[in-house]
Amino acid sequence: MTDDSSARSGKLPDEVKVIFTPSGRQGKVPAGTTVLQAARNLGVDIDSVCGGRALCGRCQITVGSGEFAKHGITSGNDSLGKVTAVETRYADKKGLGDGRRLSCQSLLCGDVVIDVPPESQVHNQLVRKAADDRQIEMDPIVRLCLVEVREPDMHEPSGDFRRLVEAVETQWPDRVTGSISCDLNILQSLQPVLRAGKWQVTVALRDGHHIVGIWPGLKDRIAGVAIDVGSTTMSVHLCDMVTGEVLASTGAMNPQIRFGEDLMSRVSYGIMNPGGDREMTAAVIDGLQSLISVAAEQAGLTPEDVLEIVLVGNPVMHHLLLGIDPVELGGAPFALAVDTAVEIRASELGLGIHPGARVYVLPCIAGHVGADAAGVVLAEAPQKHDEYTLVVDVGTNAEIVVGNSQRMLAASSPTGPAFEGAQISSGQRAAPGAIERIRIDRNTLEPRFRVIGVDQWSDEAGFDEAVKATGITGICGSGIIEVLGEMYLAGIISMDGVVDGQKADQSARIEADGRTFCYRISENVTVTQNDVRAIQLAKAALYAGFRLLMDKMQIKAIDRVVLAGAFGTHIDPKYAMVLGMIPDCQLGNVRAAGNSAGAGARMALLNRGARREIEAVVRDIEKIETAIEPSFQDHFVKAMAIPHKSDPYARLAAEVELPERILTAEDAPAIEGGRRRGGRRRA
Amino acid sequence: MTDDSSARSGKLPDEVKVIFTPSGRQGKVPAGTTVLQAARNLGVDIDSVCGGRALCGRCQITVGSGEFAKHGITSGNDSLGKVTAVETRYADKKGLGDGRRLSCQSLLCGDVVIDVPPESQVHNQLVRKAADDRQIEMDPIVRLCLVEVREPDMHEPSGDFRRLVEAVETQWPDRVTGSISCDLNILQSLQPVLRAGKWQVTVALRDGHHIVGIWPGLKDRIAGVAIDVGSTTMSVHLCDMVTGEVLASTGAMNPQIRFGEDLMSRVSYGIMNPGGDREMTAAVIDGLQSLISVAAEQAGLTPEDVLEIVLVGNPVMHHLLLGIDPVELGGAPFALAVDTAVEIRASELGLGIHPGARVYVLPCIAGHVGADAAGVVLAEAPQKHDEYTLVVDVGTNAEIVVGNSQRMLAASSPTGPAFEGAQISSGQRAAPGAIERIRIDRNTLEPRFRVIGVDQWSDEAGFDEAVKATGITGICGSGIIEVLGEMYLAGIISMDGVVDGQKADQSARIEADGRTFCYRISENVTVTQNDVRAIQLAKAALYAGFRLLMDKMQIKAIDRVVLAGAFGTHIDPKYAMVLGMIPDCQLGNVRAAGNSAGAGARMALLNRGARREIEAVVRDIEKIETAIEPSFQDHFVKAMAIPHKSDPYARLAAEVELPERILTAEDAPAIEGGRRRGGRRRA
Repeated sequence: MTDDSSARSGKLPDEVKVIFTPSGRQGKVPAGTTVLQAARNLGVDIDSVCGGRALCGRCQITVGSGEFAKHGITSGNDSLGKVTAVETRYADKKGLGDGRRLSCQSLLCGDVVIDVPPESQVHNQLVRKAADDRQIEMDPIVRLCLVEVREPDMHEPSGDFRRLVEAVETQWPDRVTGSISCDLNILQSLQPVLRAGKWQVTVALRDGHHIVGIWPGLKDRIAGVAIDVGSTTMSVHLCDMVTGEVLASTGAMNPQIRFGEDLMSRVSYGIMNPGGDREMTAAVIDGLQSLISVAAEQAGLTPEDVLEIVLVGNPVMHHLLLGIDPVELGGAPFALAVDTAVEIRASELGLGIHPGARVYVLPCIAGHVGADAAGVVLAEAPQKHDEYTLVVDVGTNAEIVVGNSQRMLAASSPTGPAFEGAQISSGQRAAPGAIERIRIDRNTLEPRFRVIGVDQWSDEAGFDEAVKATGITGICGSGIIEVLGEMYLAGIISMDGVVDGQKADQSARIEADGRTFCYRISENVTVTQNDVRAIQLAKAALYAGFRLLMDKMQIKAIDRVVLAGAFGTHIDPKYAMVLGMIPDCQLGNVRAAGNSAGAGARMALLNRGARREIEAVVRDIEKIETAIEPSFQDHFVKAMAIPHKSDPYARLAAEVELPERILTAEDAPAIEGGRRRGGRRRA
Repeated sequence: MTDDSSARSGKLPDEVKVIFTPSGRQGKVPAGTTVLQAARNLGVDIDSVCGGRALCGRCQITVGSGEFAKHGITSGNDSLGKVTAVETRYADKKGLGDGRRLSCQSLLCGDVVIDVPPESQVHNQLVRKAADDRQIEMDPIVRLCLVEVREPDMHEPSGDFRRLVEAVETQWPDRVTGSISCDLNILQSLQPVLRAGKWQVTVALRDGHHIVGIWPGLKDRIAGVAIDVGSTTMSVHLCDMVTGEVLASTGAMNPQIRFGEDLMSRVSYGIMNPGGDREMTAAVIDGLQSLISVAAEQAGLTPEDVLEIVLVGNPVMHHLLLGIDPVELGGAPFALAVDTAVEIRASELGLGIHPGARVYVLPCIAGHVGADAAGVVLAEAPQKHDEYTLVVDVGTNAEIVVGNSQRMLAASSPTGPAFEGAQISSGQRAAPGAIERIRIDRNTLEPRFRVIGVDQWSDEAGFDEAVKATGITGICGSGIIEVLGEMYLAGIISMDGVVDGQKADQSARIEADGRTFCYRISENVTVTQNDVRAIQLAKAALYAGFRLLMDKMQIKAIDRVVLAGAFGTHIDPKYAMVLGMIPDCQLGNVRAAGNSAGAGARMALLNRGARREIEAVVRDIEKIETAIEPSFQDHFVKAMAIPHKSDPYARLAAEVELPERILTAEDAPAIEGGRRRGGRRRA
């Protein structure tokens, strides 16, 4: 390329100086060298799919400005030579931004500063989402490479595949890491594709040595999909595997719901119905296939454009996805079939996407701490901080990781379904009509609340009109935390969780309910004594899990708390602290992380190093089995109570009458009646 | 093992001397060591599947006799201690030959010579077949290993697969060559199999690092299948992958016959009928599936016991087997899709055998020299000799390899179907009723012959009665060589292949046939002038191929000729020499090798080193394309004639009036009329 190009240029200096930003790399190259070649010589990161043939447009750059004097460079816009006919053709066909040049066509004719925009960098730092400062460095395991293949020749009768390999090795030496092999379907389509492309084809090179896809001519877009399969919902993010951009996101209920609402009822279904596990596997795979098709269509692609999938899920989902009967996860010793990462072909799972597509499943941490937790760890990276982080994903089981750069521990705590609104008299899914926010007047005990689907609070104008569509139907899982926190702060429930019947004199909202009392929020929504007990049990189990790991870690406090998952996203951390759900910590260091498991899946999709990283981290995590730790029971019993509202009330007082430093459950008197489990609930 | 065992023994010397035969390895080991352990310490080859648990019986040995004094060893039968209860149990259950001991149970109590019988050696030298002195060293790519796996434990919640890997690594360190992985189906069946086997399972370890099969308890027999897929017939040999023994052999017509008798008509079928290539692929795979099932049943096994398959076939068969449209092989430049060895899962081909079974396909050499020729090279090993060998497999194309340890050349020659009986007026398949042997009286020109299915020659008593069942129906492909050879030796045809009409005066068997003459063998079988021409053309093409490679090799003579394949097996090499089909060579050095391609497949099945060997050899073979070599035409024209019957007649004269040193076609005058092809016949 360099030789051809220099022929085109006029009188040139022997050598030119070039500085690339933002990398700052600089050096001298022979005049007439293309910018792309110079970048490669100097180790500057500029992407290309077509390998310098002015087809893909991935290698765009601009001439830098303003910094010339500083670098002692005086020449300016002429230093790249004139815009070439090839670039004009490209611009006419696909468009080229103002001042943009194709680095594969631009010749270095004078000293120059070259700006490499982020989208032209291979290792582009992607901001994960708008509200999030974490970045994913692009280093996808599958890369597109355009190659020109030698035609067959009777004088040297080598197979087409041999010449394809030779082309990849010589035209993309930086990308090849080993002896190149391919799938059978590549051999089957190779000859027609080579001829259709007139010996110019794009291959998808996986992990530097395995060809998984081939297309005639230039193919500059393939997709990858990051999938989080939860017990209740499945979410799918379809990403451009060249740029890293999220092209489409979608989600759906897990179709296994029909076999049982929670995990253990699905495990039971498999035990009770021969072949039931295969039925559930087929259901979830079908569901994923639909989601992938929908996402591909949204992105203007087809499922055949999907070359890579990363999956996370809890252990039962993990096993069912892989066609492994989860029966062993239903009872002690809760043995996983496999706890290492799994890499297989998508076709082995029955997914109808590109025939060469692979599926990577993150490792499971333990029998109750799944690949979803591994995804959370990858996204939240407690192992990269010296401070102690507590990461928790609350579901029917809370998956808990505590640790720092020195040591990591993991456990699961059997919180049961109360946090999801089950076992609560007015509990319901987070759907229109559900109460999600509440404030209770400390004197009158009157509530004001918001329901999902209505903008106004219940005491604001227009609420009554707006709520007519759905009515006020119940309390969602995260709402119940806020209700109980407010009830406690208003003195309706005591530290030991008793609804105070004496308050009935003060407000008609306290009603007798058999031998106990309940609090009425609306005509058909009440909070009963049993509801309070159910949440106390759940939060005690959660807190006991935290304490167990902190004891094992020999620490008394946590620096940072990350609440992952849907529940963690929707609860107000302040009320979680009021109820003593999470340990003593600066409130500002408690963060709702959203779908961290899915974010981790996306990191593993777009960066192959992230896979090796999480495999190593998971291998080193110490797994603690709460069911066999006697101290778990002690912590559980102690954690039934709600903590003291001690001084100083400080910063948070104005808002929720909450002390900045929350006292922990240990500060409260133990409640003996809280003990309710001999062993593991779900065993 | 050693520690347990020594506890059982009484008063012992500190060390004992042990000599193993036939290896001759010897050394001193602590008394009380098991024979198996001692063998391993001393690098002696004793097999085991169960790893020393007295289950598989692979490790049987006997105490040597007769040689004690020579080795300075005086103690005898007591030196292995008493037969243990475990051995007695094994003998009761599975039988143990006289004097046989299980080396995993026998303790070395005194100096001793141990005989390791061939069947107990891992690297057992298998004699390939009774009539054959070549041997295959057993080193199968798949090995069975019995392991005991740690049970899961809540204190250390590792996945079952991790503990399986640990068991294989610690219990079979000699067999593990890398980080152990497995197929998805292993993960899917792992948990029930481990529990069914009470944590004792047998795994099939492939290539030292990949688990492809798992069974509860001891599994001591798995099979491999070597398959040669010819255009006309397919043959299958099912082998015990532990002992190497051929358990069953079977064969059938290639079901693709219905798409076209010869290769090129099948290629055309694919071109003319969209999807026709997939139809042909399905047909051959179905056919193989049936053969494998039949062979497995003959061996008392099921198709699920088959863990490994090796395939050979000509390039068109190779492509169709792999689901590759062979259209490119139908025209210049005859490009193969792939010329390297291919390894895939059997399930990818749609073969219903063990789900973890792999298929290894030998490399193709060139567009007309296939994986079957690679099999022939592997079996005949010209690369291992300093003498020059010519190996030829005659079919519609003759696949030719010429070379020695220094250099190897390969080409194909378009012989056409005449050698297979096509294009011959009375030609037919080798089936009952076909003339396969003939002698013609030099004076009377009367023939005597044999037909397939009848024991007597035609002039012997009982022939007329015996032949009634079928009649005399035609001449088979190999028979025509003998007929023409005899006709020439009897003077019925001249050196330039003309049927001599003047002989009609001498015998009524010479008949006018239009403007030419023919020779009548029986009432309905004649040899016409056109028949002679067809064979002349075929043998000229064959011979021209040989000469071309000899020219390239710059040699004038061949030391050894190997005739591979069915045609090579059935023709009498003497007549091939009479007609000038094969180059000048000592007749004793011309050998019919039978199904060498299939033998090569079996070598690759039972010895993984053979795969690396043939891959390297094929890579280095120089491929010559006869179609673009001008000298091929020259040789072809010259080779139309039949060589002189020069002196000395010597050794062979008595039998067929043939000189020991056959003059080559070059000695004969060129026949200009023989030129008939501008390019490649089948292009």
